[in-house]
Amino acid sequence: MHAYRSHTCAQLNASNVGQDIRLSGWVHRVRDHGGVLFIDLRDHYGVTQILADSDSPAFAALEKVRAEWVIRIDGTVKARDASLVNPKLPTGEIEVYIREMEVLGASDELPMPVFGEVDYPEETRLTYRFLDLRREKLHANMMLRSNVVRSIRNRMWDLGFNEFQTPIITASSPEGARDFLVPSRLHPGKFYALPQAPQQFKQLIMVSGFDKYFQIAPCFRDEDPRADRSPTDFYQLDMEMSFVRQEDVFAAVQPVVQGIFEEFGKGKKVDADWPLIAYKDALKLYGSDKPDLRNPIKMQEVSEHFRGSGFAIFAKLLENEDTEIRAIPAPTGGSRKFCDRMNAFAQQQGLPGMGYIFWRKGEDGQMEAAGPLAKNIGPERTEAIRQQLDLNEGDAAFFLGGKPEQFEAVAGRARNEIGNELKLTETDTFRFAWIVDFPMYEKDDEGKIDFSHNPFSMPQGGMEALDGDPLDVLGYQYDLACNGYELISGAIRNHQPEIMFKAFEIAGYPNSEVEKRFGGMVKAFKYGAPPHGGCAAGIDRIVMLLAEEANIREVIMFPMNQRAEDLLMDAPSEPLNEQLRELHLRVIPKE
Amino acid sequence: MHAYRSHTCAQLNASNVGQDIRLSGWVHRVRDHGGVLFIDLRDHYGVTQILADSDSPAFAALEKVRAEWVIRIDGTVKARDASLVNPKLPTGEIEVYIREMEVLGASDELPMPVFGEVDYPEETRLTYRFLDLRREKLHANMMLRSNVVRSIRNRMWDLGFNEFQTPIITASSPEGARDFLVPSRLHPGKFYALPQAPQQFKQLIMVSGFDKYFQIAPCFRDEDPRADRSPTDFYQLDMEMSFVRQEDVFAAVQPVVQGIFEEFGKGKKVDADWPLIAYKDALKLYGSDKPDLRNPIKMQEVSEHFRGSGFAIFAKLLENEDTEIRAIPAPTGGSRKFCDRMNAFAQQQGLPGMGYIFWRKGEDGQMEAAGPLAKNIGPERTEAIRQQLDLNEGDAAFFLGGKPEQFEAVAGRARNEIGNELKLTETDTFRFAWIVDFPMYEKDDEGKIDFSHNPFSMPQGGMEALDGDPLDVLGYQYDLACNGYELISGAIRNHQPEIMFKAFEIAGYPNSEVEKRFGGMVKAFKYGAPPHGGCAAGIDRIVMLLAEEANIREVIMFPMNQRAEDLLMDAPSEPLNEQLRELHLRVIPKE
Repeated sequence: MHAYRSHTCAQLNASNVGQDIRLSGWVHRVRDHGGVLFIDLRDHYGVTQILADSDSPAFAALEKVRAEWVIRIDGTVKARDASLVNPKLPTGEIEVYIREMEVLGASDELPMPVFGEVDYPEETRLTYRFLDLRREKLHANMMLRSNVVRSIRNRMWDLGFNEFQTPIITASSPEGARDFLVPSRLHPGKFYALPQAPQQFKQLIMVSGFDKYFQIAPCFRDEDPRADRSPTDFYQLDMEMSFVRQEDVFAAVQPVVQGIFEEFGKGKKVDADWPLIAYKDALKLYGSDKPDLRNPIKMQEVSEHFRGSGFAIFAKLLENEDTEIRAIPAPTGGSRKFCDRMNAFAQQQGLPGMGYIFWRKGEDGQMEAAGPLAKNIGPERTEAIRQQLDLNEGDAAFFLGGKPEQFEAVAGRARNEIGNELKLTETDTFRFAWIVDFPMYEKDDEGKIDFSHNPFSMPQGGMEALDGDPLDVLGYQYDLACNGYELISGAIRNHQPEIMFKAFEIAGYPNSEVEKRFGGMVKAFKYGAPPHGGCAAGIDRIVMLLAEEANIREVIMFPMNQRAEDLLMDAPSEPLNEQLRELHLRVIPKE
Repeated sequence: MHAYRSHTCAQLNASNVGQDIRLSGWVHRVRDHGGVLFIDLRDHYGVTQILADSDSPAFAALEKVRAEWVIRIDGTVKARDASLVNPKLPTGEIEVYIREMEVLGASDELPMPVFGEVDYPEETRLTYRFLDLRREKLHANMMLRSNVVRSIRNRMWDLGFNEFQTPIITASSPEGARDFLVPSRLHPGKFYALPQAPQQFKQLIMVSGFDKYFQIAPCFRDEDPRADRSPTDFYQLDMEMSFVRQEDVFAAVQPVVQGIFEEFGKGKKVDADWPLIAYKDALKLYGSDKPDLRNPIKMQEVSEHFRGSGFAIFAKLLENEDTEIRAIPAPTGGSRKFCDRMNAFAQQQGLPGMGYIFWRKGEDGQMEAAGPLAKNIGPERTEAIRQQLDLNEGDAAFFLGGKPEQFEAVAGRARNEIGNELKLTETDTFRFAWIVDFPMYEKDDEGKIDFSHNPFSMPQGGMEALDGDPLDVLGYQYDLACNGYELISGAIRNHQPEIMFKAFEIAGYPNSEVEKRFGGMVKAFKYGAPPHGGCAAGIDRIVMLLAEEANIREVIMFPMNQRAEDLLMDAPSEPLNEQLRELHLRVIPKE
């Protein structure tokens, strides 16, 4: 017989009754039923109930066993009494009578329990991550992640993509975040950087003549901590294709992502219709460039109804340039209580408030419009608004005004809040949309033109477009939104050096600066570069959505805490003087 | 029609004749046959011959096209004349008459050609890696690597292993090499380290209750450069299993590795018999702990034949303790010329030389032993040696003497040389052996006891063995040798804290030091650790063997040069002052 086990803890069933078997695992729970010890023995695969009474030669030793000890037992499989069969457990038909027991790994008293999924402070959980990971939920999350990654790889291979590894100790790859640096011992004073993304390398792979690349790639960014991201690194499904347009990338990605959500979405509906929504429409309709389409609410512009109206605030506001009034229709939201709550929400979000109108049954049994706004603008305008928004008795509408960029984000959050509060937003569906036509440039706070997203994207219209107003230039750049999250970001790349130089020049970077910062890629583009494009999908984010977790640390095996520390392994830590000397570095003491 | 192609450059054949098609790719070669331009158009998939004569509207533009330009053409598929069909090319039955052409990416004059596989200096190849990678051999190597990794993953999954990602920005994981450090911005003066291997994490995964782990893991070591290894990082197939003994690991690994070599070994024989050879026997028989078993030569001890013999050097040498004489039999090596050449080889390797005897047909037609050694020890001893070594007329034997550790390595190299020179070594086979029973400890140069290999391995015999002579303790540690290379290294781990502390104590590390250096793992072992073990296989090495490449840079997409520089991306480079300030670091100027 095998030294440790003849079966796993999930294998035995009625067909094994009478057999002499061997199991190894962790003591999940011990129950002492007066002279009979029941132990739930747990391994990676499942749980088996094992027991001993005082007739067993192992009884005395078993009495000393505590939770989370690792033991090996030999015993005989017995059928459970019909009344004790547990149909929820694969091994619920049987139990094992223990004849012999060996302690393989004892345990000190536990700083936190494994059994029972009791909530414990995160610092404790991270310090004893090896105990935390034994718990059912976290174990399941890690297996989910592992299976998702496996399925992604298989789906990519089936589509003809090839997996290539790109360098990790490399040059800075400016992606807008801060690099982690690695001092070079052989070249004192010089540093490597860890890649923020393999963007330049995957583009080089295309220029090197490979057609379809993917990688589940670690990306490193020295970012200030936030609950939903790791302070050091994250993984993305990184992919790139040659000789493609935007629609080819979409056609490649959709079956992969849709398939993953169908496979691991626990039966939730996965919408197969992935609309293309222009960036500016997304902001207009949803107040977000990652709209949650499970929420049916679409905002509408209603400026005309307020222009010169009795609602002075909006009327005056509309006299300024680039202002508008937008409505958030709220079907079934027609009560003062709800409207006041939403108004308060807008105030929490930093706006002066949201005007509203709601439609109720009047004392005369007829529908009437209520709310201060309705009074100010009068019945005709109110009715026109109702008709535009297609609302009825029992419904409401909220109004925000000003320059769109100043209220759009709050409007988007209000839309989410309204959809959730009124239960308009589906909870059992994944809905996707490609957000396209991102502007290439924006004005920064000082009025300077800068790239608004990825500087490597191909401007729509190419060189000609760059000769016009930069703020009108759209890029072949796209995001995939899912349920309010950005899941994927990508672009058709700018593979023509002269267009690239021009694009950077508009953003204030002279050719010399471009050559300096992206020298390798620019050089490559000068020797026959194919049109290419691709995208990157956040693995952690996909798993979080599938596992219904809000904290990224619940889907990473050994995460850092929010101060970027590994409490189990004690990182970062002070280096040896010898190490610093070899690297020709000195630490500047804090003042 | 698609914007760039209706077919790849490997797809068209006789069945497409007459069709209007579109292709995109690189101009591999242009030939001007007086008024007819022939172009080999190349993409990731293959090559298609396209042509235009002066009747084609694209002719004038095509005349300007040069090697490695990326173009898109529209044209009509035509059958080649029977005499011009190229059966070696999948597209060899057809050619495409070009009607229209668009330049997608022009190229400056090339610093090195792609066509023709001309040998170029490595510095040029690395600086223009994107050109180098377009060449047939390197392209094939990268695809081989990608396919090997894919196959490994599939094989591991099929065996029930789960892929988990372990941290890359983490704590130091002492594996005997130098760490790469990463300064922490949030914790001034503290540093992360890049893992030399995920050893501690994979052990923690086992302690966390997962059963079978694998990962194609990047490993980082700041090593002084060598031709057959990367100066910064390399990839390994890392795996670990719980509740296993050594033989379980072997049983899991063999089908994976054997399968890979069968799948990608280009028809070479893959020996299915993987013998277990004790470390000390490997040194004795083969002079190496990674013996090349394609070479049938086994060395033998022949001390008795020289003790008190007329060959004074050996006779005297044997009077010292721990000395012996070992013979390398060399079937078919029986000529003075060959023996002298091998003797010279030993001298190049730093030995005074190798004594030899060879057997030839004497003037009387009878076999006679020749060489100075034979004369010195006389015919009886010579004949006894011949019989022990089972040699005959036309064969030879070489002799080395002294303390084995002083001549074994050279003996091993001489065995290789002899095997190759005499063509005894198979060239069309992969032969494997598990080297087992490595000693846990050795004496260092100062006579101090230290770990000879991995300190985390379980000593055979456990605590009891550690109470005896440390130099007698063997570990459950193993390597897989293949054709003279170490392909895999692994161990059953020491999962019991008290045995671990004792093992370290013997090597001179007090408990406090162990707690400090391996605190996370030691802590984990105190809370119920399962017996576990595993191994790691070098991916780069496997691909090198399969691709028959001696230089690791031929199987890595974007390798560093031997000075640990990325010539294409310009790494390492000088950081901005701002970056150093944020990291609280100062570079110490060179003296």
